[in-house]
Amino acid sequence: MQITPLIAAKAELTSGGLPAEPIVLSTRVRLARNIVSFPFPGRANSSQREQVLHTCFEAMQDLHDFEDGHLLETLKLSPLEKQALVERHLISRELSQAEHAGGVAVSADQKVSVMVNEEDHLRLQLVRTGFNLDTTWNEINALDTEMEGKLDYAFSDQLGYLTACPTNLGTGLRASAMLHLPGLVMQEYMEKVVRMVNQLGMAVRGLFGEGSEATGSIFQISNQQTLGESEQDIIKRLSSILHAIIEQEQNARQVILEKKPARLFDKIGRAYGILQNGHLLSSEEAMNLLSLMRLAVDLGLLPEDYRTQVDRLFIEAQPGHVQLTAKGEIEPRERDKQRATRMREEFAQAPTLNYKNLSYPAG
Amino acid sequence: MQITPLIAAKAELTSGGLPAEPIVLSTRVRLARNIVSFPFPGRANSSQREQVLHTCFEAMQDLHDFEDGHLLETLKLSPLEKQALVERHLISRELSQAEHAGGVAVSADQKVSVMVNEEDHLRLQLVRTGFNLDTTWNEINALDTEMEGKLDYAFSDQLGYLTACPTNLGTGLRASAMLHLPGLVMQEYMEKVVRMVNQLGMAVRGLFGEGSEATGSIFQISNQQTLGESEQDIIKRLSSILHAIIEQEQNARQVILEKKPARLFDKIGRAYGILQNGHLLSSEEAMNLLSLMRLAVDLGLLPEDYRTQVDRLFIEAQPGHVQLTAKGEIEPRERDKQRATRMREEFAQAPTLNYKNLSYPAG
Repeated sequence: MQITPLIAAKAELTSGGLPAEPIVLSTRVRLARNIVSFPFPGRANSSQREQVLHTCFEAMQDLHDFEDGHLLETLKLSPLEKQALVERHLISRELSQAEHAGGVAVSADQKVSVMVNEEDHLRLQLVRTGFNLDTTWNEINALDTEMEGKLDYAFSDQLGYLTACPTNLGTGLRASAMLHLPGLVMQEYMEKVVRMVNQLGMAVRGLFGEGSEATGSIFQISNQQTLGESEQDIIKRLSSILHAIIEQEQNARQVILEKKPARLFDKIGRAYGILQNGHLLSSEEAMNLLSLMRLAVDLGLLPEDYRTQVDRLFIEAQPGHVQLTAKGEIEPRERDKQRATRMREEFAQAPTLNYKNLSYPAG
Repeated sequence: MQITPLIAAKAELTSGGLPAEPIVLSTRVRLARNIVSFPFPGRANSSQREQVLHTCFEAMQDLHDFEDGHLLETLKLSPLEKQALVERHLISRELSQAEHAGGVAVSADQKVSVMVNEEDHLRLQLVRTGFNLDTTWNEINALDTEMEGKLDYAFSDQLGYLTACPTNLGTGLRASAMLHLPGLVMQEYMEKVVRMVNQLGMAVRGLFGEGSEATGSIFQISNQQTLGESEQDIIKRLSSILHAIIEQEQNARQVILEKKPARLFDKIGRAYGILQNGHLLSSEEAMNLLSLMRLAVDLGLLPEDYRTQVDRLFIEAQPGHVQLTAKGEIEPRERDKQRATRMREEFAQAPTLNYKNLSYPAG
């Protein structure tokens, strides 16, 4: 398998070697770019798509970011390998299903990935652990500049970067953060938050694209507008909205701790007990249990290093990862069994939940 | 509180100092008796009821069984104390709610109890751990003979022992066993078993009188007929039906172990995890979780001595017991909290479920 070393490495949510933080799992910026003299992928013929893939891979192979990294052609990957890359957010579901030439360049630490021949010729992505929008932007901006030195980007002085879909026109920038919001979910405030965020021109989705009932209480908040605002302004506006949500999540946790601690500890305790002793776990249930373990870490009930472990397991509990670990396609029931076995092993040595160590606020 | 020493002692399900057995928690025989020259309790006036209580208590106080035992007048007990006695099956709910003179004599080990002024003047009960119908019958028969030496029983040569309700006429005997049937419940065979048992003239109820959806998968099977059959014949017939049910339960467990072990281990594992880590437990959920722990012992996943502990907790998890432990009436929510705390403490030191030690059949 081509991606074995990549999958063996830590999943992207814990990339960059940084310890995981409370509430904000990761920040991400992606840029949509296209190359002049080729039609957009949706309008290109096979030969043109292959030329684009070749040109882009050639441009990227010498870049520092992809030293020891991976240049993967999607058509050469097995369905399971592509599924695992989707679960790591390294490629989109659309690219994984495409039947034309396409690919992805992934840095060794999986922080940087560049899709080729998705909706646009190039989709540059940089993801960092924790709340680091500025650094993330600066780093992807540097990569973009490097790429621009090697490739002739389609750019209009009037419109900015040209993209296949007008919703990406201009900056081509989508900045986002993955937030862990169990407090807002438990208090049933998420619908309100989603409405508020939408009104401010930002989108809310789950870890894998779901809506306000997101599995594991994980939500991705991103800008929707790419035109008429500078990159810095987009990032600044998103930042201030994220700060507001983080504060609301902290308040929600505080209220739950004050008003219904037994209910909260019951949820956390049961999740811990099931992870340690269950024998059948769907990926959705696993996500929800892990989410409560992340909260347990934030509250001081489990040691800090379990937060990074939980973030890794969020990804490794997904169906593609479970099957890659099993070295082949397996039925959902068998996946649930192997997932549970994995969780039992991961939590077998976990210390008892330490309620005496309860700390708050943990933001 | 009058019953403090009684409640501090082990609950009746584990009486007699015998270790708990798989499947059959306990066997019980009760005899309905009345005294000549007094109307049945339902037709007696206050003064007559008081005389009956006085006469019976006087007759019993010298009996060997009640040395170091308890002679309790129900009107002198608090509602909580009466509730706890009901939960221990030492008095009926009817006697606990009666507003006339009544009482119960309980032996020190709670194996023997005699209600006075329930539906009949006397209801003698003897309960033993495990499957011991013959011994139980012999012991209560001996007690009955002793009592008959001191009291003038209402008896007709033609009808046998006279009782307030014709359904008890004749032998006045009700023999029963408390069975733990999680295999038949999981396999959804219980409705069939109940139908079969009913057709054979026996009744099926839950631990606290429920039907075929009994909490904790605990069922009480008893004879319905008291007339036209000798005591030995009733007991023999009940025994053979119990043996048939036990065999069916063993088969059901075997089938589950063969066909869906992961589902079974998942149920048991989750129950173990929740008992060890939960913070809110209703009595019904506690019963269901404990039931799975009893099954875990039967299967060799937990040490044998946990079976006796589980049987004790079945009773001590009941609302009256939780409140007596808390030394006063408390709200259901607070009970759920204290019940969960108790379970966490009881299972904190439990060894990890040992699947390598799986043994079968465990009947």
